[in-house]
Amino acid sequence: MPHQSSQSAKNMPMRYFIGVDLGGTNLKVGAVSTKGEVLFRTEAPSDVKGGRGALLKKILNVIEETRHMVKGKRLSGIGLGVPGIVSPETGIIAQSPNLAGWVDFNIKDVLAEKLSWPLYVENDANAFALGEGWTGAAVGIKNFCCLTLGTGVGGGIVLNGSLWHGVDGFAGEIGHIVVEPDGVPCNCGSQGCLERYVSANGLVRMAQEGKDDILAAPLLKGCCGVDGLSAKAIADFARQGDPFCAGLFQKLARYLGIGLADIVNLLNIEMIVVGGGLSNASDLFLSAAREEMLKRSFKVPGHRIKVVPARLGDNGGIIGAAFIAFGKELH
Amino acid sequence: MPHQSSQSAKNMPMRYFIGVDLGGTNLKVGAVSTKGEVLFRTEAPSDVKGGRGALLKKILNVIEETRHMVKGKRLSGIGLGVPGIVSPETGIIAQSPNLAGWVDFNIKDVLAEKLSWPLYVENDANAFALGEGWTGAAVGIKNFCCLTLGTGVGGGIVLNGSLWHGVDGFAGEIGHIVVEPDGVPCNCGSQGCLERYVSANGLVRMAQEGKDDILAAPLLKGCCGVDGLSAKAIADFARQGDPFCAGLFQKLARYLGIGLADIVNLLNIEMIVVGGGLSNASDLFLSAAREEMLKRSFKVPGHRIKVVPARLGDNGGIIGAAFIAFGKELH
Repeated sequence: MPHQSSQSAKNMPMRYFIGVDLGGTNLKVGAVSTKGEVLFRTEAPSDVKGGRGALLKKILNVIEETRHMVKGKRLSGIGLGVPGIVSPETGIIAQSPNLAGWVDFNIKDVLAEKLSWPLYVENDANAFALGEGWTGAAVGIKNFCCLTLGTGVGGGIVLNGSLWHGVDGFAGEIGHIVVEPDGVPCNCGSQGCLERYVSANGLVRMAQEGKDDILAAPLLKGCCGVDGLSAKAIADFARQGDPFCAGLFQKLARYLGIGLADIVNLLNIEMIVVGGGLSNASDLFLSAAREEMLKRSFKVPGHRIKVVPARLGDNGGIIGAAFIAFGKELH
Repeated sequence: MPHQSSQSAKNMPMRYFIGVDLGGTNLKVGAVSTKGEVLFRTEAPSDVKGGRGALLKKILNVIEETRHMVKGKRLSGIGLGVPGIVSPETGIIAQSPNLAGWVDFNIKDVLAEKLSWPLYVENDANAFALGEGWTGAAVGIKNFCCLTLGTGVGGGIVLNGSLWHGVDGFAGEIGHIVVEPDGVPCNCGSQGCLERYVSANGLVRMAQEGKDDILAAPLLKGCCGVDGLSAKAIADFARQGDPFCAGLFQKLARYLGIGLADIVNLLNIEMIVVGGGLSNASDLFLSAAREEMLKRSFKVPGHRIKVVPARLGDNGGIIGAAFIAFGKELH
């Protein structure tokens, strides 16, 4: 068996890792091989409103379910991506807009007590970045960042091949770069943050602000109503040629380009990976964002950087979380 | 001689380094001890208009002058800070607003040919950051950045104790963070860059834009005229209570605060050092900038970061350039 790694000596089952991607809406869990293949995957609603205890129990249950579905391999560690600012060292959640009431909560200690495998926690966008770096769009790239454009915006920065956490674990908050100084108030306390424009929520808000234009827009008129608008509907209408909806994506692209230019001029990295639910509509905004970025960047770093859609889709968070468990063993 | 380092064995003279701070206006050169003390210092106008050859000759002359002024010590290396984007590896200047015509010029090779000591080149703001880290405001700090607020804005980022150059040496262009998306056009090709508001030039421009208010301002009225305005005059008037001039510093502070918040939210570093000529007026804007930054940053990294004036003043560039020569030998 010449290709076996040293860890899996003769008769020793191959290792695998479980990655848990805890989101405000869905809990995604998968078993991931040492090569980054997803061996099994399951998903359940997070049901945050059901309370912390219930969700923690659910996490333990899906881990158990996953473990039972993987035969003939040895579980060697579990990684958990958390939608908030969390210290990988202590496991304490310092801030989380989607898990209100979990602040100052040590999720690592509480879960580790019930688990027999090494447990690692990390911010979900950081985990996503590592996943894309391991088997996704940023394979072989040492200096890049990831944006996850979903309800809000997450970010992770990788420098010299490692996550840049900053001194308190708060680094990489790309969603809170200021792109409009007098702009829309943000939950973070600032205003005009990238997240307020370049996210599903931001897109819907911009659409609702243009209420009168929407009513005039032929495709939207009488369809779902202003209140029923979703980012997906806006994307569909834009693709069908609705000028108002296409215009919203142009606005989004411009703000994204400004944020990307700030990153280029500050960090001169190799790649920016754009993921998250909204990246399914990247055909509607990514090339315009790239153009805006180029207009606003120094030439060399602007032309050097690749702005690409994420490759792992919904599995990025799982694969990245598993990699954290794997990576920690590697070092 | 128990305190002597191993390099300066018995009868071997102590080492020193020469730091050259090449600016668009002045050429500053100093001899710096291994402890960061300035042993001798001289200054000459750069006279960029006199041509590249003449300025290169002047650089060699002031190095020679400096060398002759330091007795009993051994010159061990020369560091050169260049006002532009320069590759420390190749020595080629890629971009320089203040040294037009020097682009794609290998300043390192040309000077090294005439010098008998190791020569290192670096961007001037990066050199300044290293100087402040060595003996200035950021002593003992591993993660910080420096802004030099002068005619324009320079920036240098230090992560884990080393300059973050980015993959092409273009990182740290803090002056080109976008703070006003539809703002004033910038020489870099973008618009609304921090540098257009938070610099001596920016301040004077903002004053000139408020021409009618200036004419109404009691202190400025009939004093130096709108065209004769300087950042220093505006600062003096602001200190004397002129509300228009004080208001300009408030505007500057707000934009600086926005840029600082972007840095805080992206990098979660420990300190931001504010230097350059305009920092002589930091009493007029630094605390307001800090407040704006706090409003726009996440709490933990916002309260963690120290925003402080530079300590080395005019010598920062010299000391930092010398450190580059010293540091390269240390590794």
